[in-house]
Amino acid sequence: MEHDDKPLLRVLSGRRVDPPPVWFMRQAGRYLPEYRAVRARAGSFLDLCYTPDLAVEVTLQPIRRFALDAAILFSDILVVPHALGAGVAFSEGEGPRLEPVGDRAGLARLDPTRLHERLEPVYETVRRLRSALPERVTLIGFAGAPWTLAAYLVEGRGSKEFLQPRLLARRDPPLFADLVELLTEAVIEFLSAQIAAGVEAVQLFDSWAGVLPETELRRWCLRPARRVVAALRERHPHVPIILFPRGVGASLLHFANEAGAHALSLDTTVPMAWAAAQLDGEGGLALQGNLDPVALLGPEAGLLAEARTILRAAASRPHIFNLGHGILPGTPPERVETLVRYLKSAGE
Amino acid sequence: MEHDDKPLLRVLSGRRVDPPPVWFMRQAGRYLPEYRAVRARAGSFLDLCYTPDLAVEVTLQPIRRFALDAAILFSDILVVPHALGAGVAFSEGEGPRLEPVGDRAGLARLDPTRLHERLEPVYETVRRLRSALPERVTLIGFAGAPWTLAAYLVEGRGSKEFLQPRLLARRDPPLFADLVELLTEAVIEFLSAQIAAGVEAVQLFDSWAGVLPETELRRWCLRPARRVVAALRERHPHVPIILFPRGVGASLLHFANEAGAHALSLDTTVPMAWAAAQLDGEGGLALQGNLDPVALLGPEAGLLAEARTILRAAASRPHIFNLGHGILPGTPPERVETLVRYLKSAGE
Repeated sequence: MEHDDKPLLRVLSGRRVDPPPVWFMRQAGRYLPEYRAVRARAGSFLDLCYTPDLAVEVTLQPIRRFALDAAILFSDILVVPHALGAGVAFSEGEGPRLEPVGDRAGLARLDPTRLHERLEPVYETVRRLRSALPERVTLIGFAGAPWTLAAYLVEGRGSKEFLQPRLLARRDPPLFADLVELLTEAVIEFLSAQIAAGVEAVQLFDSWAGVLPETELRRWCLRPARRVVAALRERHPHVPIILFPRGVGASLLHFANEAGAHALSLDTTVPMAWAAAQLDGEGGLALQGNLDPVALLGPEAGLLAEARTILRAAASRPHIFNLGHGILPGTPPERVETLVRYLKSAGE
Repeated sequence: MEHDDKPLLRVLSGRRVDPPPVWFMRQAGRYLPEYRAVRARAGSFLDLCYTPDLAVEVTLQPIRRFALDAAILFSDILVVPHALGAGVAFSEGEGPRLEPVGDRAGLARLDPTRLHERLEPVYETVRRLRSALPERVTLIGFAGAPWTLAAYLVEGRGSKEFLQPRLLARRDPPLFADLVELLTEAVIEFLSAQIAAGVEAVQLFDSWAGVLPETELRRWCLRPARRVVAALRERHPHVPIILFPRGVGASLLHFANEAGAHALSLDTTVPMAWAAAQLDGEGGLALQGNLDPVALLGPEAGLLAEARTILRAAASRPHIFNLGHGILPGTPPERVETLVRYLKSAGE
């Protein structure tokens, strides 16, 4: 199948497809019993990410069940800090822990020289997936954005506020800039290698962009995103890039106007009609999103009504249907099936 | 002093004042040693809210230190659920706990008949404050918005996701609507009584509006806000109303266009230049905000530069300088002093 015959890639080239292609963030995950079975066989969560047999299997699981237009590589944004030697550990129920980076000595412990060596199992997963996927399904690679990775590294764990990185960025901007610079280079390297191994599009997750005010957002999120996009566009001109700066509200305008990406993924709070009217970019910027994942746990009628509202609001734009955040663990798989069937019939 | 001579009330009547009036969310709080001393004498946090001697004292503390244009009644948004009999408890370091409301029986346990009786100490605090405050300082009352109160009641505690109320709102909309209706009436009653006791402006805190998508936000946040505003405008036409729907991004447009309030308070993420250009309301809608509270913990030069950026971006509008979120406990009081001095000299 030619590049442009895949619905998702057509949309990312700036054209509309009816009905719009669909995939879901965290479509491979705990809501699927077959995922939980594989997860139980893997040792740690990182083992699952780094074992190609298992990572390929869980990536393919939702593709077997649902008529999705994309598979997203099963991995985690924290594999980059891990591959830089930051001592990432996932403990059940507690979320990730990292050796916190708070000073020059901590920054110096991050070692980019073994990045590709440590991430080789991820690239192997990509190679296997590329040959295993059905013809019309696009393979998406991804990375955490530099700010979000820096936030985890400085905080040393998940947080709802991420005060430590926000403070460090203000108290020692040169140190923080060096950290973000190192992560930006690592992200470019990681995404380039995923592309070389076979991913056909990439998404950059800036999950914690929403804790920053505009001035800091420009410096620590928008500028690095522009760097990543420019570097990938130069090295891999045919591979589209989706940005997901979560929680940034009206600052999405800056990402649309200045980042140079092919698509913006919209979080749950973004009014799709506003986005469709206001988020112009060069060459038919595509919009991805943005159903509330909670809708998949509510009644079917409400779910489909909300999906229809989003389809209509995005009807003027190249659109990829997705959620505004990841699928929740308690989601019934049958409800996902119902939604995908509805979406596939919506253009008829 | 006449109503219109107070700078904050002038701005809330739709006129610009230079330099803009200033107050800070959580200006009475743990960052002040004199607050911690009073807090140590009170039993529980709720005791502090319900003991007029102490609540008056902590409300006045920041007014004595800084040249602020408003005092905000010291209280908590959860006094309304508490006065409805929801069994609110604050335990140190853990945040609030409430008896969760998950069904009709839970809703039936909420008893609005004793609301004013239980909240009488709050009204007494207001009466004493009104006579204790310096002439040019405006006394602001407040309440939690119905959605945010419902979210705490259904979740039974704080949360970063508030999944339980989001689910209940979708699974049993009639029950949830009855809960929000009951809370809307209680909020109107509570704010009316604060006004009768002497507050000169009120702020409605919808701290968790940002977890809802646009459809749900319209139903559970915007519509109740409009009801509260309409009821208060009818009963107390001279008392202005500030809405703080936190984290709603571009949906601020709906609040500006449809809620009928006198001012919108902007969270940290809102680009002030965008807000100043786009958030039109009837009769000179005022904008309040929106410095990142983390800036008060960083270097002075950066703090003042960020304050200046906000002042300039809001220069075309009636503007009240404030933070985008509450003052952090680790904030040095001297830094607050420096900021207020800077703001007071900024118009010269």
